[in-house]
Amino acid sequence: MATDNPSFVLRAVENVAYEERPIPEIKGDEVLVAVKKTGICGSDVHYLAHGRIGDFVVEKPMVLGHESAGVVSKVGPDVKHLKPGDRVAMEPGATCRRCDACKSGRYNLCPDIVFAATPPYDGTLARYYRLPADLAYPLPENVSLEDGAMMEPLAVGVHSVSNLGGFRANQSIAVFGCGPVGLLCMAVARAIGASRIIAVDIVPARLEFAKSYAGAETYLPPKFQDGESKTDYSRRNATLMKQQLDIADRGRNSIDLVIDASGAEVSIQTGFYVVKIGGTFVQVGMGNPNVMLNLGLLMTKELNYKGSFRYGPGDYPLAISLVASGKIDLKPLVTHRFKFEDAIAAFKATRAGKSEDGKGVIKAIISGPGEE
Amino acid sequence: MATDNPSFVLRAVENVAYEERPIPEIKGDEVLVAVKKTGICGSDVHYLAHGRIGDFVVEKPMVLGHESAGVVSKVGPDVKHLKPGDRVAMEPGATCRRCDACKSGRYNLCPDIVFAATPPYDGTLARYYRLPADLAYPLPENVSLEDGAMMEPLAVGVHSVSNLGGFRANQSIAVFGCGPVGLLCMAVARAIGASRIIAVDIVPARLEFAKSYAGAETYLPPKFQDGESKTDYSRRNATLMKQQLDIADRGRNSIDLVIDASGAEVSIQTGFYVVKIGGTFVQVGMGNPNVMLNLGLLMTKELNYKGSFRYGPGDYPLAISLVASGKIDLKPLVTHRFKFEDAIAAFKATRAGKSEDGKGVIKAIISGPGEE
Amino acid sequence: MATDNPSFVLRAVENVAYEERPIPEIKGDEVLVAVKKTGICGSDVHYLAHGRIGDFVVEKPMVLGHESAGVVSKVGPDVKHLKPGDRVAMEPGATCRRCDACKSGRYNLCPDIVFAATPPYDGTLARYYRLPADLAYPLPENVSLEDGAMMEPLAVGVHSVSNLGGFRANQSIAVFGCGPVGLLCMAVARAIGASRIIAVDIVPARLEFAKSYAGAETYLPPKFQDGESKTDYSRRNATLMKQQLDIADRGRNSIDLVIDASGAEVSIQTGFYVVKIGGTFVQVGMGNPNVMLNLGLLMTKELNYKGSFRYGPGDYPLAISLVASGKIDLKPLVTHRFKFEDAIAAFKATRAGKSEDGKGVIKAIISGPGEE
Amino acid sequence: MATDNPSFVLRAVENVAYEERPIPEIKGDEVLVAVKKTGICGSDVHYLAHGRIGDFVVEKPMVLGHESAGVVSKVGPDVKHLKPGDRVAMEPGATCRRCDACKSGRYNLCPDIVFAATPPYDGTLARYYRLPADLAYPLPENVSLEDGAMMEPLAVGVHSVSNLGGFRANQSIAVFGCGPVGLLCMAVARAIGASRIIAVDIVPARLEFAKSYAGAETYLPPKFQDGESKTDYSRRNATLMKQQLDIADRGRNSIDLVIDASGAEVSIQTGFYVVKIGGTFVQVGMGNPNVMLNLGLLMTKELNYKGSFRYGPGDYPLAISLVASGKIDLKPLVTHRFKFEDAIAAFKATRAGKSEDGKGVIKAIISGPGEE
Repeated sequence: MATDNPSFVLRAVENVAYEERPIPEIKGDEVLVAVKKTGICGSDVHYLAHGRIGDFVVEKPMVLGHESAGVVSKVGPDVKHLKPGDRVAMEPGATCRRCDACKSGRYNLCPDIVFAATPPYDGTLARYYRLPADLAYPLPENVSLEDGAMMEPLAVGVHSVSNLGGFRANQSIAVFGCGPVGLLCMAVARAIGASRIIAVDIVPARLEFAKSYAGAETYLPPKFQDGESKTDYSRRNATLMKQQLDIADRGRNSIDLVIDASGAEVSIQTGFYVVKIGGTFVQVGMGNPNVMLNLGLLMTKELNYKGSFRYGPGDYPLAISLVASGKIDLKPLVTHRFKFEDAIAAFKATRAGKSEDGKGVIKAIISGPGEE
Repeated sequence: MATDNPSFVLRAVENVAYEERPIPEIKGDEVLVAVKKTGICGSDVHYLAHGRIGDFVVEKPMVLGHESAGVVSKVGPDVKHLKPGDRVAMEPGATCRRCDACKSGRYNLCPDIVFAATPPYDGTLARYYRLPADLAYPLPENVSLEDGAMMEPLAVGVHSVSNLGGFRANQSIAVFGCGPVGLLCMAVARAIGASRIIAVDIVPARLEFAKSYAGAETYLPPKFQDGESKTDYSRRNATLMKQQLDIADRGRNSIDLVIDASGAEVSIQTGFYVVKIGGTFVQVGMGNPNVMLNLGLLMTKELNYKGSFRYGPGDYPLAISLVASGKIDLKPLVTHRFKFEDAIAAFKATRAGKSEDGKGVIKAIISGPGEE
Repeated sequence: MATDNPSFVLRAVENVAYEERPIPEIKGDEVLVAVKKTGICGSDVHYLAHGRIGDFVVEKPMVLGHESAGVVSKVGPDVKHLKPGDRVAMEPGATCRRCDACKSGRYNLCPDIVFAATPPYDGTLARYYRLPADLAYPLPENVSLEDGAMMEPLAVGVHSVSNLGGFRANQSIAVFGCGPVGLLCMAVARAIGASRIIAVDIVPARLEFAKSYAGAETYLPPKFQDGESKTDYSRRNATLMKQQLDIADRGRNSIDLVIDASGAEVSIQTGFYVVKIGGTFVQVGMGNPNVMLNLGLLMTKELNYKGSFRYGPGDYPLAISLVASGKIDLKPLVTHRFKFEDAIAAFKATRAGKSEDGKGVIKAIISGPGEE
Repeated sequence: MATDNPSFVLRAVENVAYEERPIPEIKGDEVLVAVKKTGICGSDVHYLAHGRIGDFVVEKPMVLGHESAGVVSKVGPDVKHLKPGDRVAMEPGATCRRCDACKSGRYNLCPDIVFAATPPYDGTLARYYRLPADLAYPLPENVSLEDGAMMEPLAVGVHSVSNLGGFRANQSIAVFGCGPVGLLCMAVARAIGASRIIAVDIVPARLEFAKSYAGAETYLPPKFQDGESKTDYSRRNATLMKQQLDIADRGRNSIDLVIDASGAEVSIQTGFYVVKIGGTFVQVGMGNPNVMLNLGLLMTKELNYKGSFRYGPGDYPLAISLVASGKIDLKPLVTHRFKFEDAIAAFKATRAGKSEDGKGVIKAIISGPGEE
């Protein structure tokens, strides 16, 4: 068994190391991909720091990484649309294809999904990764391998904005949280033809970036007042935001879709006030699992509040085509690049939100072993 | 101006009285209805006790009542489908018909809706009530005026279960709260062809009724343990409920739709655990406006959490046809009947949840002036 | 290789014979089913008589039959929900599970579907048939193997009425053609809670059956007049039908959904007149491929005209549950039963529409080899 | 009664004249608009030439014209969002607002719609036109009155492509017929973010225009061969078209949506071959009402074939915002301009498809009385 497969492994909380792992054997409809670029996601960092996310607990060493692109190294005998050398984006969740969720068009809810770097399954920060061929999407010539690695968070944005949010041309959106997923939600909204994009964050520099990157209007929430409860703060914050940006409850100046990509309780509370009557609110940011919500607003505005989980049918293809057609530019989001052997530095910078030179991290990309 | 229009008026908190009001003048497309039967709703009682519901504040004397049926007394010159003497159910919200909400099929969200007994608009507890002719629905012969008065809460059930919940034959439902709206949600689910109906309430007698009335399986939540938090209680409660009733997260034994008709925080929290992965949760019960929710479940189960507000296009007609066809029997829900001059007793019983003889109230109906 | 697998094979047009075929080997996620009951479908007869249906051409000997149920004989090592001895309905189309159609919830449109008795794939009229385990649906105790064989045409009805037609409780339906599929569409509509079912056929005895079986109102179209064109006939026919049954273009007496299960040009033309304004028309009956249609009606009534092809996610499960819950009774449809060695007689009767004793065939069922 | 209201009246087939008509009185929620620009539509020409379209028959003199914009002259006392002097696009169908169609979000299907220049209702080719205030849409500053007149056919395109067609970013569309409606469908598709637009017409110059105007790929169908049937021609035509433009039945190179804006039988037949498996086909062009269609394709491809009729909720607002935001440029479509007193010449040119100087007509606009 070939073992030339250096892998970046989480052994325990705050304990990572490089290990040689066997090169995966592929089955008839699988491909082996030489991983070239991998983005670091907040969830990777979270596993490193806490060893778990909710009910997913790291109980044995696990290779990290799931936002990857690479070059096809080997294809199974049943694979027709790919050949060695093809550049591909890798969708990191292999599903059973037989359950009700898989068959009814919601495969992200498959109970038997094998998702990279979600325990107990190994991730992509290795020389090689094996996946079903239909989850390896060929990259058009004008799409780089770094872009390819970014397709994973972009697919999250596509799923939240287009699929669950039902966002259409000339609608308006407000996005709370200007991290990578929030920014990509804005990019998707803009590509679809948003009439108005509003970015909300508590860090002015992130708002500046949202403005230049996605043409967003920006809103900087005020500070808490002494003794102010979260719910009081949120009502005040919403009133300010609606005044400042001339947001109405219905009609032309209303917000069709709110996305919370922050996970912050006050963001979500504020979003309930800001979204239009009859509007949709998609929750994609994960924070404290238990959050106080205003159900009076949910009911009298007859809101539709949807949880968003990963991505499903058509999300990767739409993500790739939006980039290939030039409607979304992923390059400005890649702020930091690391060699494979510097993966620990990449995690450190992502965790700190900035590198040692003080430069803010949006997305750090780690190259495959031996790559620049 | 004719004034033979005795009306039951809320003058201030805990202060009601009979007043003579002018008989409304009708316009070309309106009808004047002699109100014969009016159900008492929790919101009527709430206005009596608190003078407000959320942002709706009673600032001047207001006639109470909005669940009514009666006999057409007069029709405007443009009215073609009704004539004096016709028995009708009265949909109590007259909308502007010109705003985006009205034109796009969500008229319940019209900002200019004139809704009976929602301040500042007078309600139906009077000899006469005026409304647009298209909101007066003729009752088939086999549907009584009392049934007609019950169409209002039934329309709420239709809106929540069929319209927002998208409930279809052979699906399963759990309803938290066995008050009138909860019971009517079960009745609708049963009429549509539910494979399984689960009723949840903390009052065993109410569960018994749900069982006999709607063929529901029942679940009685346990008591709180010392020092147990609401969120801990809800997790434990959900685990018990799933064990006891053999409820799964997906597949045949899963719950497609959860309706909360209780407004209780722990009910809603429990419902998030109980609803199937990828399922829908409709909130129709109003309680404390701010509620702690588990967004981790919302996201990883990719739930769709919808607020329900009143009723919209097609809800009254479907309600009437379900009763006319015998698929729903409203009679068992009417537990108490009062003369118009005994309206105060009706409110008292509804408020207490039982009449002086100790009999539990599901729905109390007040007859029109001069009626038995 | 075991060969105890007698099979009923179409060798060429009008040329069938029994052959011994090898018993299929099963893979990890497959099951081998001992076929016990198989219904004869019009398509089987059509292949026998013409050797083709549209672009599907029988070019080499092919086992007939695709409406089957049986008993699990062997399960692959990966199969968990089935064991030898389980009684199952067999969904006869194995799909690739990897294409866009499969992943987006429309697997009936998979280009690589292996469908029983659609050339070049063998059918189920044999002792054994192999299929993926998730397509073998366990039959509840109160559902017979004959019922199980009928799940295939019932799934067609479920797909057309519930899935594509979006049919809901208290809606009205007209079905043109009272063959097995038409009757099953009516049965589904009734199970879902139709307010009104109208059956149309040119054979009075079939209308009588529709009336007793599905509670349908019936309409017998008139004969052609001398020199009358089809389009003229259809307009006259529709006018008569609407008068006779008090059908309106909109509102309570209108027809929400029309299903054509006849394939007859005049039925389809008539249906365009009869369906309500803004209504839906589902085409499930296959006749002459080229049909003259009134696009003026399609446009001014803003109709939605949908082709129906086989069945998709959830259709088999819903079919089985409607039978298991007693909402649909399949037994009255099985008019003729044949032993395996009398398969030719079964085809002959189905083709003639009646057996030698003159009794009309709705569905003829052939038992498996050695079964009674 | 003021009578300064010169009007262009169709008195009988091929018989038009200017008449002085009374200035309409307005009701509380109506506005009187001084009509400034009116486009000539094929239906206006058809009434002039034939006195009828289908069941709509001109039985008494009728003012022509329904594609108009103007300046508000007077507002009723209940009108709040408009004042004299406001420039508005005029949606020409006033509905009853009380029927099921109006209340359920499909007001274009209202049986009592008062539609300009559809018998027996007068049109807009007059100095003044009265309409409900909510159908007068204020034009943003950067949108001209000519643009405003073009909103009517653009709303048809919006309704067909976005509303009925469900067209979304990165989908592909083929439009048969490059007249004004076809071109506007392409413009809408492009504004929404089409990945691919294919224009089909038998006039090369029209294809050239579609290419430059909407960035469309173009296809010029071949001529008929001797003795070739329409159905044979259409199959051959579709094969050629698919080869020439590399169109597949599914996947990246497939056509998500086909719009027929030609009304030609062979276009529709060809479209059934060209649209992707599982795709949508919207019929917006009216030709011969009876058309031969391939139902075999409808069924085996499980197509969704929808008739399109006028426009409904949200279509005018979306049309206006697409123009205001610069995503659609209407100016290139206005090829000819006429004074009010030259209306006959405008009709003549539209009918001929070109003016006397040989210049092809896409849209001819007639100014209001006294306007340049």
